[in-house]
Amino acid sequence: MNLLTNRRLVRIEWGDCDPAGIVYFPRYFEMFDACTAELFELAGMPKADMIQRYNIIGTPVVEVQADFSMPSKYGDNVNIETSVIAWKISSFRVEHRLMKGPMLAIAGFETRVWATRHPDDPDRLKARPIPREVIERFKKAR
Amino acid sequence: MNLLTNRRLVRIEWGDCDPAGIVYFPRYFEMFDACTAELFELAGMPKADMIQRYNIIGTPVVEVQADFSMPSKYGDNVNIETSVIAWKISSFRVEHRLMKGPMLAIAGFETRVWATRHPDDPDRLKARPIPREVIERFKKAR
Amino acid sequence: MNLLTNRRLVRIEWGDCDPAGIVYFPRYFEMFDACTAELFELAGMPKADMIQRYNIIGTPVVEVQADFSMPSKYGDNVNIETSVIAWKISSFRVEHRLMKGPMLAIAGFETRVWATRHPDDPDRLKARPIPREVIERFKKAR
Amino acid sequence: MNLLTNRRLVRIEWGDCDPAGIVYFPRYFEMFDACTAELFELAGMPKADMIQRYNIIGTPVVEVQADFSMPSKYGDNVNIETSVIAWKISSFRVEHRLMKGPMLAIAGFETRVWATRHPDDPDRLKARPIPREVIERFKKAR
Repeated sequence: MNLLTNRRLVRIEWGDCDPAGIVYFPRYFEMFDACTAELFELAGMPKADMIQRYNIIGTPVVEVQADFSMPSKYGDNVNIETSVIAWKISSFRVEHRLMKGPMLAIAGFETRVWATRHPDDPDRLKARPIPREVIERFKKAR
Repeated sequence: MNLLTNRRLVRIEWGDCDPAGIVYFPRYFEMFDACTAELFELAGMPKADMIQRYNIIGTPVVEVQADFSMPSKYGDNVNIETSVIAWKISSFRVEHRLMKGPMLAIAGFETRVWATRHPDDPDRLKARPIPREVIERFKKAR
Repeated sequence: MNLLTNRRLVRIEWGDCDPAGIVYFPRYFEMFDACTAELFELAGMPKADMIQRYNIIGTPVVEVQADFSMPSKYGDNVNIETSVIAWKISSFRVEHRLMKGPMLAIAGFETRVWATRHPDDPDRLKARPIPREVIERFKKAR
Repeated sequence: MNLLTNRRLVRIEWGDCDPAGIVYFPRYFEMFDACTAELFELAGMPKADMIQRYNIIGTPVVEVQADFSMPSKYGDNVNIETSVIAWKISSFRVEHRLMKGPMLAIAGFETRVWATRHPDDPDRLKARPIPREVIERFKKAR
């Protein structure tokens, strides 16, 4: 199967790294989040438009998982390949593969929900069914 | 069993939050990382001392996993409870429980390795057996 | 004159530091921003309430300046003292003094405006006169 | 005079923005810092090489100043133009111009020192004369 995949070249910056000289791991999740947003743009749905059009607050993560095999350091150029690997009723699963040349350095996964504010409590979120046309766009754009 | 547990009160700052008004999830991993460091201090091993004494580069994560049940927003006060839940030869598993009052808002897990620079390649890391006395300290401090 | 001053103890975290082992300077501005928010709370105006009550988007910075005299590193405990040193029609000036023991390590200044969204263009901001009662609260709380 | 200038296109990410929907200002300093590093690369001196070759810890900032005229939001594309505008004995001044189309949205300045660790106290920094050849490279690369 051929999934719609976003590819982003990321340069590791000095400020991404910690006193051990390697990327401080929370920065990878910032990179991954930006890659998910870019994947939706590639499918024709910039996040800002999507939020306005569907009256959602976004697609917050409900689960995150990552396996780190190789560290990266300041000045490295890495490639991040991002795809939606599963669509469910109101959630979807995103895979990120951070590559250093041909090597898989990090495999990351996010489960995200299509979410509105909860009608009874603005501090809580409520999952909603993902509109059919959103999923269709990922098939067409592929 | 009674695990050594670090408790940290964290105030959610404006700069931790995104345009949806909720914490941008990579920030939680920064909080969790700081909590792991604090847990080691509680066991009598500040990270800086540990790095110098054992000639390691630190305890980099090799796996991270988190389940997010409730969002937090600017001004919230949350408590993070952190314990080492398993010790292996050269790695250990950390659990973080982010509590909003009595509710578990996030359960996070890190697998970390006791790591030196690889002798043949300074860009790679090498896992080393965790010194017995390090594990003992967690039992004594409990 | 005796200015209302917020004092915050900040512990320098591993993730605040760069490969040189010292605080990555943008982190100081995050700390300062959190201190400004806390100063307003001390004056009885949590930012969230203030935004809702006065229908502003916040108090965005229009000028920032900082002098760095001493670096800090992981594990350091520093104190940040924050005051509003001048009130103008629609802006105010905040001073931050980051102390390492008795030594002034950083002097930071922010000029902030009392801002709403521009009525003709939601992407722009519009400065508004600061309500008298806001300034009064800083005098009373002192 | 024609200064060597680095131009970087920066896309504003969701995670760069705060609950007001605009860039959280400390993020701009991260962008600026990355631009300064890139300017040195453009002059033929990647920071990592420079640190090793000259035995410095880097070029830490001793003064930062920025004027913010226009906010940016998620999805905006901005250009940052960076030049060294003055060389002194052991310090230099960097200017950043963040442009939104033809408009200057932010003017930022950094004073940085050519620094080694202090021989008598590893926690302090010591400014050193900037090697002539470093300055020459900026003239040649122009």
